[in-house]
Amino acid sequence: MAAVAHPHGYVLLPGPENGDSPELGERIRREEDLPALGAQALAAGTPLVAGSAAVLAPLLTRPGKIICLGLNYYDHAKEGGRDKPTYPWFFLRAPSSLVAHGQAAWLPRVSGHFDYEAELAVVIGKRARHVMPEQALDMVLGYACFNDMSVRDYQKKTPQWTVGKNFDRTGGFGPALVLAGDLPPGGRGLGIACRVNGQTVQEANTDDMIFDVAEAIGIVTECMTLEPGDVLVMGTPAGVGMARTPPLWLKPQDTVEVEIERVGRLCNPVLAEP
Amino acid sequence: MAAVAHPHGYVLLPGPENGDSPELGERIRREEDLPALGAQALAAGTPLVAGSAAVLAPLLTRPGKIICLGLNYYDHAKEGGRDKPTYPWFFLRAPSSLVAHGQAAWLPRVSGHFDYEAELAVVIGKRARHVMPEQALDMVLGYACFNDMSVRDYQKKTPQWTVGKNFDRTGGFGPALVLAGDLPPGGRGLGIACRVNGQTVQEANTDDMIFDVAEAIGIVTECMTLEPGDVLVMGTPAGVGMARTPPLWLKPQDTVEVEIERVGRLCNPVLAEP
Repeated sequence: MAAVAHPHGYVLLPGPENGDSPELGERIRREEDLPALGAQALAAGTPLVAGSAAVLAPLLTRPGKIICLGLNYYDHAKEGGRDKPTYPWFFLRAPSSLVAHGQAAWLPRVSGHFDYEAELAVVIGKRARHVMPEQALDMVLGYACFNDMSVRDYQKKTPQWTVGKNFDRTGGFGPALVLAGDLPPGGRGLGIACRVNGQTVQEANTDDMIFDVAEAIGIVTECMTLEPGDVLVMGTPAGVGMARTPPLWLKPQDTVEVEIERVGRLCNPVLAEP
Repeated sequence: MAAVAHPHGYVLLPGPENGDSPELGERIRREEDLPALGAQALAAGTPLVAGSAAVLAPLLTRPGKIICLGLNYYDHAKEGGRDKPTYPWFFLRAPSSLVAHGQAAWLPRVSGHFDYEAELAVVIGKRARHVMPEQALDMVLGYACFNDMSVRDYQKKTPQWTVGKNFDRTGGFGPALVLAGDLPPGGRGLGIACRVNGQTVQEANTDDMIFDVAEAIGIVTECMTLEPGDVLVMGTPAGVGMARTPPLWLKPQDTVEVEIERVGRLCNPVLAEP
């Protein structure tokens, strides 16, 4: 783990892949005081890890759970022919689907319908169960970018989206964790965009989310315990490739980027699955 | 971990909760030769853990992923008003939903629609990707009982079943791992039953599964890597409480049991969530 200065404070980076220091997620699960440790490391001049110079791991490699909210921006629900949801369409991602910043996302062998989805990820820092919305944001350690890349034909094989959301190397997660204290409460009011080969394909604001971070934590913890290192992925705005005419599918040699204001820029080249 | 003799060979038990030996799942992820180690421990007279005398952990406490097949018995699909699926209705369970043999399953505070589902669980022993069905069973370390307890009103809040399948302490998993070599290939031809307070409410045979274990592994690994310690949960036969007239919901002080021939008996009392 490294603490790296950025314009609004500092961020925590995962170690390089197969590094020998404890994985960031493991330190979160131990409930170490990461904001304080990060500040100390920064003050002590801990070597910085440059995102472009190291092969990073996904921000967390083995979160206990990754809970995604489907249809959480109204304009995206509409472009898919859906009504505004009255309850989040939750689905889970498995850790085996994650891919690090800078690493190749895999266009599956079995599908050409590979799509992007820019999303805000929320990393939980404290155990939480039956949390009132007014306490919910106290559970958040920080925020990161997520690209919820989706294999659309598999997502629609049955009403359960799970399989289309869990192909290997389709969940872009990183590059860094921005601590909650360095962002507006709940990560509100931040510009969020997706670009394919430099062309903007999604552009919105986190204020457009139907269920905000505090509400989502309240709704989830009515049902299950959120544990340190768990992740919420907050849904995507309009502009996905599936809803375009003609559809815009990701193909080998494309570059896909998710950028969230003050949170960072997550970049993945796309390659055919080997 | 302990190896315990049973009539058809021996089984591997998880350690007690918060035990200091490595968790069974951790040993599987390290790809230790558990069949051989179990046989040695048994021959050396390793102390046996009696299922009734110790508070066991769930069979595995932090599997990388728990992939469940919905509607995998035709008579259960029919009782829910569904057609025979042509592709499995996959959904994921998070580790936080698991509950050990002998531990109380929790009737949620927010729902009275709490249901049982007897299922065969498959524990993966080897990394597997794009596996041909004829090699698929080589990836299986062993089998266990699973009770996929479901909160039906939450399961139906949206088309995504995830939330109703992920309440805390609703995924009964154990008591023990029966090694694949001690059972028929693919766990076929085994009686499977569920009892509530001693009354049989589900009774079927694993031969009735629509997608068998080898097929399921083939289908899953077309999309994602199965890792050692991952779990497939193979779906439930007819007889669930939701499909009865009147419905049969689990209530506090009930006892619910899943029994699978030659695999074991998983028993959970039901208590109101504290």
